[in-house]
Amino acid sequence: MSLDSAVPPPLDKLSLKDAVQEAQFSQRVLIHSILSRADGGSGLAGHTIRIGGWVKTGREQGKGSFAFLELNDGSCPGNLQVIVDAGVHKLSDLVPTGTCVHVEGELKVPPEGAKQKVELRVKNVINVGPVDAGKYPLPKTKLTLEFLRDVVHLRPRTNTISAIARIRNALAYATHTFFQKHGFLYVHTPIVTTSDCEGAGEMFQVTTLISEAEKLEKELKDNPAPSEADIKAAELVVKEKGEAVAQLKSSKASKEEISASVAELSKAKENLLKLQERFKLGERCRLSAGFPKKDGKIDYSEDFFARQAFLTVSGQLQVETYACALSSVYTFGPTFRAENSHTSRHLAEFWMVEPEIAFADIKDDMNCAEAYVKFLCQWLLDHCYDDMEFMAKFIDKTAIDRLKMVASSNFYRITYTEAVSILEEASKEKKFENAVEWGIDLASEHERFLTEEKFKAPVIVYNYPKAIKAFYMKVNEDNKTVAAMDVLVPKVGELIGGSQREENYEVLRDRILEMGLPLEPYEWYLDLRRYGTVKHSGFGLGFERMILFATGMENIRDVIPFPRFLSFRLFVNVHCDMLEFRLRFEAFRPFALYCFLLVVETWSGSLPLGLGHCLTGSAVCRLRLGAWGSGASSATGASSVLLAGKCFSTFRPNSHYHFTISQSYFITFLIGNPIPQLTEEYW
Amino acid sequence: MSLDSAVPPPLDKLSLKDAVQEAQFSQRVLIHSILSRADGGSGLAGHTIRIGGWVKTGREQGKGSFAFLELNDGSCPGNLQVIVDAGVHKLSDLVPTGTCVHVEGELKVPPEGAKQKVELRVKNVINVGPVDAGKYPLPKTKLTLEFLRDVVHLRPRTNTISAIARIRNALAYATHTFFQKHGFLYVHTPIVTTSDCEGAGEMFQVTTLISEAEKLEKELKDNPAPSEADIKAAELVVKEKGEAVAQLKSSKASKEEISASVAELSKAKENLLKLQERFKLGERCRLSAGFPKKDGKIDYSEDFFARQAFLTVSGQLQVETYACALSSVYTFGPTFRAENSHTSRHLAEFWMVEPEIAFADIKDDMNCAEAYVKFLCQWLLDHCYDDMEFMAKFIDKTAIDRLKMVASSNFYRITYTEAVSILEEASKEKKFENAVEWGIDLASEHERFLTEEKFKAPVIVYNYPKAIKAFYMKVNEDNKTVAAMDVLVPKVGELIGGSQREENYEVLRDRILEMGLPLEPYEWYLDLRRYGTVKHSGFGLGFERMILFATGMENIRDVIPFPRFLSFRLFVNVHCDMLEFRLRFEAFRPFALYCFLLVVETWSGSLPLGLGHCLTGSAVCRLRLGAWGSGASSATGASSVLLAGKCFSTFRPNSHYHFTISQSYFITFLIGNPIPQLTEEYW
Repeated sequence: MSLDSAVPPPLDKLSLKDAVQEAQFSQRVLIHSILSRADGGSGLAGHTIRIGGWVKTGREQGKGSFAFLELNDGSCPGNLQVIVDAGVHKLSDLVPTGTCVHVEGELKVPPEGAKQKVELRVKNVINVGPVDAGKYPLPKTKLTLEFLRDVVHLRPRTNTISAIARIRNALAYATHTFFQKHGFLYVHTPIVTTSDCEGAGEMFQVTTLISEAEKLEKELKDNPAPSEADIKAAELVVKEKGEAVAQLKSSKASKEEISASVAELSKAKENLLKLQERFKLGERCRLSAGFPKKDGKIDYSEDFFARQAFLTVSGQLQVETYACALSSVYTFGPTFRAENSHTSRHLAEFWMVEPEIAFADIKDDMNCAEAYVKFLCQWLLDHCYDDMEFMAKFIDKTAIDRLKMVASSNFYRITYTEAVSILEEASKEKKFENAVEWGIDLASEHERFLTEEKFKAPVIVYNYPKAIKAFYMKVNEDNKTVAAMDVLVPKVGELIGGSQREENYEVLRDRILEMGLPLEPYEWYLDLRRYGTVKHSGFGLGFERMILFATGMENIRDVIPFPRFLSFRLFVNVHCDMLEFRLRFEAFRPFALYCFLLVVETWSGSLPLGLGHCLTGSAVCRLRLGAWGSGASSATGASSVLLAGKCFSTFRPNSHYHFTISQSYFITFLIGNPIPQLTEEYW
Repeated sequence: MSLDSAVPPPLDKLSLKDAVQEAQFSQRVLIHSILSRADGGSGLAGHTIRIGGWVKTGREQGKGSFAFLELNDGSCPGNLQVIVDAGVHKLSDLVPTGTCVHVEGELKVPPEGAKQKVELRVKNVINVGPVDAGKYPLPKTKLTLEFLRDVVHLRPRTNTISAIARIRNALAYATHTFFQKHGFLYVHTPIVTTSDCEGAGEMFQVTTLISEAEKLEKELKDNPAPSEADIKAAELVVKEKGEAVAQLKSSKASKEEISASVAELSKAKENLLKLQERFKLGERCRLSAGFPKKDGKIDYSEDFFARQAFLTVSGQLQVETYACALSSVYTFGPTFRAENSHTSRHLAEFWMVEPEIAFADIKDDMNCAEAYVKFLCQWLLDHCYDDMEFMAKFIDKTAIDRLKMVASSNFYRITYTEAVSILEEASKEKKFENAVEWGIDLASEHERFLTEEKFKAPVIVYNYPKAIKAFYMKVNEDNKTVAAMDVLVPKVGELIGGSQREENYEVLRDRILEMGLPLEPYEWYLDLRRYGTVKHSGFGLGFERMILFATGMENIRDVIPFPRFLSFRLFVNVHCDMLEFRLRFEAFRPFALYCFLLVVETWSGSLPLGLGHCLTGSAVCRLRLGAWGSGASSATGASSVLLAGKCFSTFRPNSHYHFTISQSYFITFLIGNPIPQLTEEYW
């Protein structure tokens, strides 16, 4: 088997003489292999085949004598038109949207004037997975992406999410193919780790301590720990039994009698030890909620990994160990940030591609990043054109042009210093929210200005100020900048961040200390510079960002199958006359009716304000509270409610509020006075 | 760009006329692209190229006039011989093992009789990453794999670990290529999840509650919470201010006076609320170690995801949602088990490949599993032959033959019932540790007997008893068995486990209830059967098991770059006269000298017995304690120590013990009497 034969040619390159084949491990022909042919499938007319898929739309025709089904199996955006006669199967079971049908039939050329090039006339219905149309969560009507986020388990059946799934798949395989082609080895860096790559990330902790504490608490509830009195009583028994032994020995009793007495003493001591141990466990529950503690801190030596463990925020440091041995490597895996961000650009769990190259400097790194991004764009044009057409039609008109532009044009390369000059020049005419001066970290608006307005093309900015970048980046000769680079692209801004790594042991060690980091956790990383150090460089590409860039999608939660993000919970901050709350969303449960308590957290405590149910989407809500906190005028209690910039209602205690977030979602909550001390003065 | 050109042909298929090229993003020629040519590189003689790599062995020759360096860059198992004259560079800086050298030179055909086909004569040393030979943790001597597990950041520089890295890389890319070729879409299932696929796994919890509790405790240490007296005092102030307001009102004071008094009252109330809130936080620290609690349980609504979250044990259930929409899909990602296993076959973090196919039954599933495993084996023969030769030479003589055998022979397929018959027949002559009868879960010894002794080939066992398999597997018509299948291979035993999934809503729901599982967490999974249900099947392949199978390696920790497993900790159980302890190992820290306390945990409490330092490896140690616990004979204190089946020492209190686990490792510990109540009677 040669590598050449491993990947089949795109189907539109197939000779029309090729017969259609059943999928090797599935009892059907993939619809893709019919519709994607250059002839649209018409050359296959006459073939009897099996097809399986889900009905997109179905309708009975000819007074119920037959039905048209638009069938999709996810292998391509197109549907196959399927015709079933009433004599073959009960039609009303087949037509509801979402029905799964597995059928056998003959491919035919449809009548003149039909849109499709081929259709299937069913001879035999093998299987039907029915749908109760009244209950199906995905009716035929156009559904918002917000709505679909609450139905993650069914949303891949929609055109948009399935197109994204195919594009995501293509980009993943293109990633592997690009790096394999260039001799890079794929390395699985660990998910559970104790290193914080950036030195400042919010990390998720991985532990078995909580479940062990819960087990212990439950166990002690069923079998309560002994009291101090129990211990005292047991100590008394030991003392008595000891005295009995002493007495028998002094009275020179028989060996058997002494032996029996010693045995009783032993038993009493065992019992005491057992009680003491359980007493200690009882104290652990009473004093520290069942967690092992040492010197007032949680004792991680009892955790699974015998120390604090976290989910990785980046595989870079670990993949460097492989680069410093196997020279060209990359990792591609999930990474995690427990950030309190609730934006359309952040996920708690996302995938990163991180190549790392030995004997490579920042210029090689930029060359690699540019070639990789271009390869991805060209790959989509070559292998996902039908899906890209869908995206261009329904999501972002410029999506295909953007791919073509990136695949064919050279990326601009400017130093950070040049970028700042450009931005300073621009800020004479254009107002940026964040002031520009040498030394700042470029804000998203700056990055997007450079790539979208100034250059209208991808831009690589390199040689950033040392102070705003991570410790491992190579310090340039000017001692002011580091050999870091960011790839900025239209629509997304920063797509890639990378750098040449500091390979000098002393410089790296000093940088770690300079940043106020402890040396000890980085000793293994320093070893790479102690022994056979090598010039090396690498970068990270946020995989979901790449998908946003390619598809033109707006929300990162729509381009990963199971988005994980800051969950449903309300934080309320009061600023003078403004009550602002952020919503934490439930990441896991589709279709649940959520209840929440609206709580105001102020400098004077937490005020539960009410409860609500059922919502989704992301919003910063602002409740303007009139003269909140000022006794005199707040007695009116009237205040307007701003939600996503819109005013919905006035705000009064003991009233119900109903917020419509999107067409399908709303919040209702009751503003009440649950804290008795609060009087109307507060309202 | 067509798919055909994406992957270059294997280098040994290159025309010898092809000139050697520098890696595109790295300032050197990959050694692989020289040595892997059919001519061994001799056709490149005369070319001036740059090379980078690490010195495997170096030696000065000709009275220090030149040096030979065996240089490896990780791109292949072979080394390039490099010759440096003393005039070009200081030789003693180049020859230590582990030195990184980046050089430019001319490829030459070596003198007649030399082993290598080509060598590099250096003209210019570009860069050197030196090594202090006395300190380098990987000296030239043969190192044990156990030793290397403590040097995970440097071990990819060794021949064995780098060969495994290349084989692992090849298997990963082969996996993607196989499924892409068959039209499967790669789906990233979530790592953080609330579903426990098997319903009984030991899971790692993912949380931000601990760090929040720690932050809170620290904050309250710096700013202690108010006492009840503080609250009472603040209440008094509120009362006084309230009375003042009332008095002013009743005395008809001026509006300004009343207003000022009301303002003071408001301020007092705010202060009270603030104190009450901080008091509550203080109580949280005092009573529950800083964790939010509700009804005596941890309140997960305050956790990041607003509910308990875990690391996934399998992506299967989630990938099914994509199979029930996109029809042929697979996932390939990390999975986690917090099992208390400490064997050479278990990891806490490992990678799984899980395809899922719609319109496919158990037979299709077996076909897919067989084709996939064969494809992987053939791929290694085609693309990693040099690495496989290394494995066959140094690790497992049969490794290449095994690959060839599997790639070329059909897998045997037998039902579970047939397998039990075979095993029952065999047990007449062969003694199994686990008795065989219909209904048992096959033990590893049974599986290995079937594949290694009975069939001497891969075997698929299918249709297992319902009672021993998971709820989601399709119940067969006999209502006794489920359509499950396991692929058993020589050397490893179970490599793949899979099944047809139950697609009938009622049957699946009843199975969930039958297993005593709650319905609610599976509602979304049941939805797949409620709406447009489809016959579907899938399986999971443990990626590291596949590598063990391919390479013949014995320990799973050697085939993943950064093994994560149950960490260093001693558990000791006493059974009558036997003291057994399990060792928990530190997963992260290379080179640390570990201290441990040997503690006996008995029904009568915990007895610290002593301490030890520095060990690795895995062992169940058994200390035979004579008549432990029996006062009469234990006074002798003599007992033998069994470690990994070998008797090393007798066992006495207040003595030092020194256990050799392997060539490089040992445990020393002191058996003492640290609990005063314990008298010699216990020994």
